[in-house]
Amino acid sequence: MIVAVIGDGVCSAETARLAEEVGRQLAEKDAIVICGGLGGVMEAACRGAKSAGGLTIGVLPGRNPLDANAYVDVPIVTGMGDARNVIVVSSAQSVIAVSGGYGTLSEIAHALKLGIPVVGLGTWQLSKDGWDKQRGMTVATDPAHAVQKALALAKA
Amino acid sequence: MIVAVIGDGVCSAETARLAEEVGRQLAEKDAIVICGGLGGVMEAACRGAKSAGGLTIGVLPGRNPLDANAYVDVPIVTGMGDARNVIVVSSAQSVIAVSGGYGTLSEIAHALKLGIPVVGLGTWQLSKDGWDKQRGMTVATDPAHAVQKALALAKA
Amino acid sequence: MIVAVIGDGVCSAETARLAEEVGRQLAEKDAIVICGGLGGVMEAACRGAKSAGGLTIGVLPGRNPLDANAYVDVPIVTGMGDARNVIVVSSAQSVIAVSGGYGTLSEIAHALKLGIPVVGLGTWQLSKDGWDKQRGMTVATDPAHAVQKALALAKA
Amino acid sequence: MIVAVIGDGVCSAETARLAEEVGRQLAEKDAIVICGGLGGVMEAACRGAKSAGGLTIGVLPGRNPLDANAYVDVPIVTGMGDARNVIVVSSAQSVIAVSGGYGTLSEIAHALKLGIPVVGLGTWQLSKDGWDKQRGMTVATDPAHAVQKALALAKA
Repeated sequence: MIVAVIGDGVCSAETARLAEEVGRQLAEKDAIVICGGLGGVMEAACRGAKSAGGLTIGVLPGRNPLDANAYVDVPIVTGMGDARNVIVVSSAQSVIAVSGGYGTLSEIAHALKLGIPVVGLGTWQLSKDGWDKQRGMTVATDPAHAVQKALALAKA
Repeated sequence: MIVAVIGDGVCSAETARLAEEVGRQLAEKDAIVICGGLGGVMEAACRGAKSAGGLTIGVLPGRNPLDANAYVDVPIVTGMGDARNVIVVSSAQSVIAVSGGYGTLSEIAHALKLGIPVVGLGTWQLSKDGWDKQRGMTVATDPAHAVQKALALAKA
Repeated sequence: MIVAVIGDGVCSAETARLAEEVGRQLAEKDAIVICGGLGGVMEAACRGAKSAGGLTIGVLPGRNPLDANAYVDVPIVTGMGDARNVIVVSSAQSVIAVSGGYGTLSEIAHALKLGIPVVGLGTWQLSKDGWDKQRGMTVATDPAHAVQKALALAKA
Repeated sequence: MIVAVIGDGVCSAETARLAEEVGRQLAEKDAIVICGGLGGVMEAACRGAKSAGGLTIGVLPGRNPLDANAYVDVPIVTGMGDARNVIVVSSAQSVIAVSGGYGTLSEIAHALKLGIPVVGLGTWQLSKDGWDKQRGMTVATDPAHAVQKALALAKA
């Protein structure tokens, strides 16, 4: 099982606490954590996963493996900028979004386009006139809930 | 001036009418139309642009140039799936979104991340707690308004 | 008809002369020139094409449309680094390689992998034990020969 | 240490034997094996690495994680076709090419362009008039030699 944790490269202490807890609980359930490999939510999720002995993959936008945060086991160096966002979510069986900005929004959209379940924790709300809400994200109330949903909904 | 027109590959007649009018008015203002090269909104925008003698570029997700709609002058063949969405908006000085689904949402998000102005016509509304709405999209009321805004806001 | 002209971003005056002549003759035959959009061979090919009233497309590796040389009509901004090499050749019906280094070699290889004919003008020679040479590149003796071969071999 | 093993998706029994031995010896030296994730040389290298308890990463061209061979621990799903070749080599500190066709040649070229050392085992010979051969690949005589060279030359 591979779960993506997505969110901003710079974030508040409270958001980092949520992401770290998400990472820790995913690793406790033997899920591999994949992310964009940088700081903020990505670093916190990797730190949490490593604290529970998990494996972490960081799909980097740049060309330098040293851009990866200190808790990434395997840096994947794409050199493809924001196009790497597609790879982060495509490689996961489900996605947990923790807060996040426009980059995170692009990842949510790519995942939903590809039919990969997205669980949101304090992240974007999507709406469009006439849009079938049922196809949208699942909203979680806390990290444990997010991890439980992400594992339950994970694409085969 | 290059303006991206984004939206679904399958759309209603009314949405196609709006996209065609957007394409036509862009070409009348000498803007090159770039899009994802497929059907629906993309085809309608290209058809409109060609009706006014404009130049149209289609950035295709697949490997076959024949996937391009009949109104694409230059098919760019990426073979990169949804990662081509980044290229569509990166190559434009502004973006007009006409309705659209998750693929369009990803393009809106990529554009806003890159600082490329987005004008929406019946498309997604974005919201997030604590998010600065000023950074978001401009909403247009009709094709003429959308084109006027897209040209006025276009990135240098 | 779209033909890619590939080669180094920095080149000798003699190589530039060959590339410019290739670009000019392609435009005279109504072929669109696609290239990597930067200097050297790419710039020379675009300059040649524009001198004959042709259309030029530059598929840029970076994120800044202003990286394009002055003879590019339509800059395609990928932000994908060397991965854009795949797009340059995929979008062409045939490829003319003028001299070139490792980047050019990658483009030759991608083209041949995809079944897109490559005509070489003073470029790499490929060899491998047991390899069927017939599948390899066509060698041209001068720009006129290269253009004639590229148009004759172009993929439908 | 991450080392890429590149080569054809379909290969002879003898080539597979070489690739498997390369994978096994890399894992014995605690190197992570990264590859294109498919069959042939890629599968043999992963099988070898797993036989020695190593970790294997497969960077897939398609959209389906199930395309990965049975010995890939972490499938990275790019959906980017041959553009994923850039990611395979960019993510490695050195590259071992075992035989291979045009796809492998593109990976060799991308690696050399990026300054990532390439060790060849029965693979392409590159030549170009006036080209400085010293910048080219290192030729290995057998798997042990290839692994030793790849580890010794690995980019910091």
